[in-house]
Amino acid sequence: MNIKLVARNLGFILLIEAGCMVPSLLIALFHHEGDAPALALAILITAAVGLPLRLFARPQITNLRAREGFVIVGLAWVLMSVFGALPFVFSGFIPNFVDAYFEAVSGFTTTGSTVVTDFERMPMGIAFWRSFTHWIGGMGVLVLMLALLPKLGGRTSYLVKAESPGPSLSKVAPRMTDSAKILYVIYTILSLLMFVVLLLCGLNPFDAAIHTFGTAGTGGFSNYGQSISAFHSPAVEIVISFFMLLFGTNLALYYALFNGRWRDFFKSEELRWYLSINAVAVLLIALMILPEYQWDVGTSLRMALFNVATVSSTTGFANADYTLWPVAARAVLLVLMFCGSCTGSTAGGIKTMRIALMMKQSKREITRTYSPRRINVVRFEGRGVDEQMLHQISIFVFLYVLMMLIGGLLISLEGLYDLETNFTAALTCISNVGPGFGAVGPAGNFAAYGPFAKIVMTMLMLAGRLELFPILVIFHRGVWRRA
Amino acid sequence: MNIKLVARNLGFILLIEAGCMVPSLLIALFHHEGDAPALALAILITAAVGLPLRLFARPQITNLRAREGFVIVGLAWVLMSVFGALPFVFSGFIPNFVDAYFEAVSGFTTTGSTVVTDFERMPMGIAFWRSFTHWIGGMGVLVLMLALLPKLGGRTSYLVKAESPGPSLSKVAPRMTDSAKILYVIYTILSLLMFVVLLLCGLNPFDAAIHTFGTAGTGGFSNYGQSISAFHSPAVEIVISFFMLLFGTNLALYYALFNGRWRDFFKSEELRWYLSINAVAVLLIALMILPEYQWDVGTSLRMALFNVATVSSTTGFANADYTLWPVAARAVLLVLMFCGSCTGSTAGGIKTMRIALMMKQSKREITRTYSPRRINVVRFEGRGVDEQMLHQISIFVFLYVLMMLIGGLLISLEGLYDLETNFTAALTCISNVGPGFGAVGPAGNFAAYGPFAKIVMTMLMLAGRLELFPILVIFHRGVWRRA
Repeated sequence: MNIKLVARNLGFILLIEAGCMVPSLLIALFHHEGDAPALALAILITAAVGLPLRLFARPQITNLRAREGFVIVGLAWVLMSVFGALPFVFSGFIPNFVDAYFEAVSGFTTTGSTVVTDFERMPMGIAFWRSFTHWIGGMGVLVLMLALLPKLGGRTSYLVKAESPGPSLSKVAPRMTDSAKILYVIYTILSLLMFVVLLLCGLNPFDAAIHTFGTAGTGGFSNYGQSISAFHSPAVEIVISFFMLLFGTNLALYYALFNGRWRDFFKSEELRWYLSINAVAVLLIALMILPEYQWDVGTSLRMALFNVATVSSTTGFANADYTLWPVAARAVLLVLMFCGSCTGSTAGGIKTMRIALMMKQSKREITRTYSPRRINVVRFEGRGVDEQMLHQISIFVFLYVLMMLIGGLLISLEGLYDLETNFTAALTCISNVGPGFGAVGPAGNFAAYGPFAKIVMTMLMLAGRLELFPILVIFHRGVWRRA
Repeated sequence: MNIKLVARNLGFILLIEAGCMVPSLLIALFHHEGDAPALALAILITAAVGLPLRLFARPQITNLRAREGFVIVGLAWVLMSVFGALPFVFSGFIPNFVDAYFEAVSGFTTTGSTVVTDFERMPMGIAFWRSFTHWIGGMGVLVLMLALLPKLGGRTSYLVKAESPGPSLSKVAPRMTDSAKILYVIYTILSLLMFVVLLLCGLNPFDAAIHTFGTAGTGGFSNYGQSISAFHSPAVEIVISFFMLLFGTNLALYYALFNGRWRDFFKSEELRWYLSINAVAVLLIALMILPEYQWDVGTSLRMALFNVATVSSTTGFANADYTLWPVAARAVLLVLMFCGSCTGSTAGGIKTMRIALMMKQSKREITRTYSPRRINVVRFEGRGVDEQMLHQISIFVFLYVLMMLIGGLLISLEGLYDLETNFTAALTCISNVGPGFGAVGPAGNFAAYGPFAKIVMTMLMLAGRLELFPILVIFHRGVWRRA
């Protein structure tokens, strides 16, 4: 392990993070709610730790290998969240450090689970920072670093690979740094578009920004306790539903669109699976909740669309308390919580591509039982998929469910709540959705859990956002051995 | 598909089943509770359908291929349960056919979930048949057929492979029919041993037989509504705990023991995993439930041992309502419900060997992320495991969880109960445990569900007992194509 190389990159990340806090400081300075000193202090400390790491850690070998790539990504996210929690602590809004760390991890990982209960007290600078972490975390901080620092050197693909969602990288350009730049540009354009649409729907610029960050990163933090219901606007609900699904799609596909390659967009097999799963879920749920909404087809469809989109895109905004819906509708949402969205989107979950490939492998395995000698290649997006990758995907899915189960067990050790609450809390954390079922449903929150459960949940959120391996690797002795 | 060959074998199975009903008829005749005519009629009908199939289905090719093997096993279990339900219906004890079918499937698959609520009304012949299905289903009816009919011809290994639990066959003899015989002899000896021990504990012969069947098959049907609590005897609880774990172990290992190969027994890697998992679970739960039992260490350990054994061996007897235990203890039991017991035992679940191999594969995959070029062979029981088998196991685990989730969703369509009840009902059915959590806990039952949910549950039970593929295959178009 090239520790100095890791340290140097972590220094970079902290400097970028300090930079990312500046807009929140400006907003705090402008609104005079007393949170400016907290943000300024957080920026100073973050930069004061980052700068010496950046300057004095001078690795002899600057070549980045897979192990350094994974360790940098894993540690970067842990560290980023530690420093990202400082504004919450310093401002006194979330004085307990574990709570603040939970909120920061929930922000960066675009989970959106919250310990906040007194939304009225939240100063605007803090609210902005809280939601801005979604926007940064959605595309990834290391991808941002690559976009900003094209001459980093070494095989930076490992960084992007470890941070980007999905089993395969969507390369939009031959060079990784160009890809990073292009993706961030697309991400920014779509976010601006959404911001403008929300303004047109009548939201004030601050609310529009907060909910754009929450949607673009598929995070789900709102500055209102009631989340989207606070706007009492079906139009806003529909706009946000639409954009949640849009940000749950592989952003590289929009690049194809912008370049006029319409075919590539509509031929995407993953997109078809994704839209089909969502369409079926919306129709099923709309049917199931018809009686809840006085047999009003329009309202039921809108409610179903919003909640399917919020769960499958792993955003987690709320416009209704779905824990009060019929158990069948809840069951559909529960299954969606595992799936998540597309490769290369800002969303969490197992990802549509993995689900699709697992289904195809399963079908092949069923066929194999009765004709053992037949050779079948699993195809996706028109190409045969490498067996090694298929194998890795099945192990990923196993580890995902295993970590969810162990997480639920660990959370239960505190003795709080019931199985439904604790295990769906673990699921919603690892899938980066936000709300779960039972006491952590859309109308509840995570405040009552103790520090142990909260630390477990932050591990689940980080593991889910980074697709398990960067977090598992940093706990693995072998990776720390000297080369 | 060689339909005639399938039909001929199904005829055999029905004749064997008719024979298996005879002891129950004798008991009914002896006790005069009015259930003798029902049993006699059921025997007649079963034989009347089986005999012509056996006599008139004359396949031109008698060579059994994989596809016929899987289809025979899948259909045999469905059919067996249909005819096994007849005594319940004819006697009027469970007049509704779907309920009776549920009970028969639950019996044969050694699940032990019940729709019975009025245990006092149950005639002894019917009670005997209900529990005897556990004993037959535990080792498998096709294995019984092979033991009885050594000259069946063809590659009978497919039948045993499709019916035996676990990813690998435990061959105790070079010829499959000899293995089947030896295994049934071991099974019978252990059952007789348990029967005697229960008699020594003061149970009457009938109760001892019923609870031996329930334990040996790791089924869990009792003739008392209160299950094992009805005996108010710690000794009985401990004896049954011990035998549940014993029948959750690979029976082939006892053959090694009987032959003086002690080393083979204690060197078994699966056995070590199995005992370790159980030991950890017992200690954890005993600690967690100490306050429930007035800090009495003895009682807590006994309670923990019994309930860990009943869940991990997938038996499902009850001596306490664990749904009232602290949520952490419930969480441990929930995780155990997935695991199940050893390959080659009579128990259900994913199986210890698969869990162990998934853990080993996961570790390898984590190592691979940071040293992609290292080649690692996964070893088990001292041998390298074939990659194809590892792959198949990961797909099995995926399908297992998927079917559990889809099952829970389908069960929820009826609108009854909550997520915890419906999803653990699906889990307990596919793992062949018996009780779940919530309304289907040890103090509850499955009677309130409608016919749709019950049919879904029987599919889950059959899929779990036959390890998915024989049931999935019969729904797969490809297998029915003419060769």
